[in-house]
Amino acid sequence: MYPTTYRLALTGLGNVGSSLLSILHREKTSLHKRYGVKFLVTGVAELGGGAIDDNGLDLALLLETLRNNSPVAELANIGRPGMDGIELMAQSRPDFLLEATPVNLQHGQPGLGIAKAALEKGIHTVLANKGAVAIAYKELAAMSDLGAGWGGNFDPTFVPSTGKSPCPALRFSACVAGALPTINIGLRELAGSQITRIEAVFNGTTQYILRAMESGQSYQEALQNAQQRGIAETDPTLDVDGWDAAAKLVIVANSVLGQTTQLKDVQIQGIHSLSIKDVQMIARDGQRLVPVSLAEYVDGHYQFSVKPMALATDHPLSCLTPDEMGVVFYAGDVERLSIASSEPGPEPAAAAMLRDMLDIICHQIK
Amino acid sequence: MYPTTYRLALTGLGNVGSSLLSILHREKTSLHKRYGVKFLVTGVAELGGGAIDDNGLDLALLLETLRNNSPVAELANIGRPGMDGIELMAQSRPDFLLEATPVNLQHGQPGLGIAKAALEKGIHTVLANKGAVAIAYKELAAMSDLGAGWGGNFDPTFVPSTGKSPCPALRFSACVAGALPTINIGLRELAGSQITRIEAVFNGTTQYILRAMESGQSYQEALQNAQQRGIAETDPTLDVDGWDAAAKLVIVANSVLGQTTQLKDVQIQGIHSLSIKDVQMIARDGQRLVPVSLAEYVDGHYQFSVKPMALATDHPLSCLTPDEMGVVFYAGDVERLSIASSEPGPEPAAAAMLRDMLDIICHQIK
Repeated sequence: MYPTTYRLALTGLGNVGSSLLSILHREKTSLHKRYGVKFLVTGVAELGGGAIDDNGLDLALLLETLRNNSPVAELANIGRPGMDGIELMAQSRPDFLLEATPVNLQHGQPGLGIAKAALEKGIHTVLANKGAVAIAYKELAAMSDLGAGWGGNFDPTFVPSTGKSPCPALRFSACVAGALPTINIGLRELAGSQITRIEAVFNGTTQYILRAMESGQSYQEALQNAQQRGIAETDPTLDVDGWDAAAKLVIVANSVLGQTTQLKDVQIQGIHSLSIKDVQMIARDGQRLVPVSLAEYVDGHYQFSVKPMALATDHPLSCLTPDEMGVVFYAGDVERLSIASSEPGPEPAAAAMLRDMLDIICHQIK
Repeated sequence: MYPTTYRLALTGLGNVGSSLLSILHREKTSLHKRYGVKFLVTGVAELGGGAIDDNGLDLALLLETLRNNSPVAELANIGRPGMDGIELMAQSRPDFLLEATPVNLQHGQPGLGIAKAALEKGIHTVLANKGAVAIAYKELAAMSDLGAGWGGNFDPTFVPSTGKSPCPALRFSACVAGALPTINIGLRELAGSQITRIEAVFNGTTQYILRAMESGQSYQEALQNAQQRGIAETDPTLDVDGWDAAAKLVIVANSVLGQTTQLKDVQIQGIHSLSIKDVQMIARDGQRLVPVSLAEYVDGHYQFSVKPMALATDHPLSCLTPDEMGVVFYAGDVERLSIASSEPGPEPAAAAMLRDMLDIICHQIK
């Protein structure tokens, strides 16, 4: 029998964090009915402070505050100006840390420090922040259930660094393309099979731009449209130069393929210098230019690259809509397994955080 | 830490069963290295008898015997003429039953009886036999870990009927289209989301035939080609009349959607009366005729049907190759999640049985 109530602390109240709060609010009854669980958000933090309520924050009030772009730290009684993610955990005493602070691919902060602090305390940790996982997967895994071989490569010498039992769980399925279950398919659905190749569209901005250029927009027009629609960031560098996709590939390399990999190990070619002509010429040749993240198994090792590639029009990645991301695994007896998911906004990534929480509850805690 | 050695009993030595033996033989070293496990096949049974070796059967010898179409029951010393699946379990004392006997959609036997006997003894059970699961999901689940809410609908009153601890695990991901992770995606990757619609190509024979008819073959020609290629059975009734797809839909209904459902609840329309003209007219209209299994959420309940449907050519199910099966989930915050897998022979289904075994070892036993 599962315990029924879990205390949650959420760091980061941007698109994904607030979308997760919205889902937890809306699905409260359904989650209790279907999974026998009740979630209390006992604390949240963003840059500048947060809010704490030992009995569970009023999610309707929090969501209204976020909609009004007001700082939650200024809320009466519950507001905590200046509180950071580390203090949040001491004050909210959570069973779960939900980490959705902004991504930094140089040092992974503040998410990395917050995640490590949580795991050290034995708190189950669910990340949407790919920076922390891309930079420090091994370190985080060793502090968690993943070090014991959560279906990945088996380490018979593993002892949880926390020395605690049960070992805190670590999940990050939202980090590799939102609701697209890249990590889970690679680890669980292909368990026992040798993955020989992965082709993926891991970045929504470049996918949107290349599809728009195919239909005649210039790179600049397509980028501006993507920004207006909220797909591309104001500073699109991480996306269009390939770093976002490369970070996702690094996470897959470390967690699914079991090969220690850093961002510098990925060959990267961005899309910013492509012309309409480049894209349309390939389309005229009966192919399609797709922003591919690639892992190839060559001579006993995986090689990684991010680059625009011309694919046949019936390739699963050519069939994606401008809003979709996708991944194709090639894995021995499982010849080809393809997945795709629509990622028009932050909701799928938030839903992925929820599935990770339920995975931990159903498979680790019970 | 996982125990390292598991004893396996396999019932059914047809295409899927022998393919599983072949994978276990070939991947022995890799499975030990990656997952820290060693599998001993201590017994196998087929119609007419089986073989037993308490130290683990010689898989090379078994595979050679099967290749020569010889009965394993006649092998010297290890052969057991007349031994059935129930006796197999007594004699081979397995940790896992692997069930791959022929499918029967009327009564589910012999697979159903064997699976129940295994669960009663506390033996983890992995089925490729969809008959048993389509007919008796609820009964089997209640005897296993699934009754306790393996991420599905939560039953707070659940007590394992075996009264044993740990409760034996039940998995059957191979039953719903081989390596296509239909069940696992529905339960785990969409955990917390409300599935509102499922569209699937669950039957390889009808998919192959409709694609062949589109390119000008008559129904009879296409069926004969499918039979020659080993895709269709000698008696193709279960496939072309929609029963195979309906059985898979029934399994999804009971295990993923939590709605008690039987074969008679599925509206079925076969493909045998379609003409080339029917198929090609739809293709000329810019659509494609696809053999769809459908679950629709209407007024608080799911409705189920199997029928050829005209879909837009950019629909994920229209993009499948003739060898692929696929499923598209629509689920609230996860707008659309599509998966597809190549199923050109029995190997993907056998690989699915292996992933289920590793799932149980990594998530239930450890």
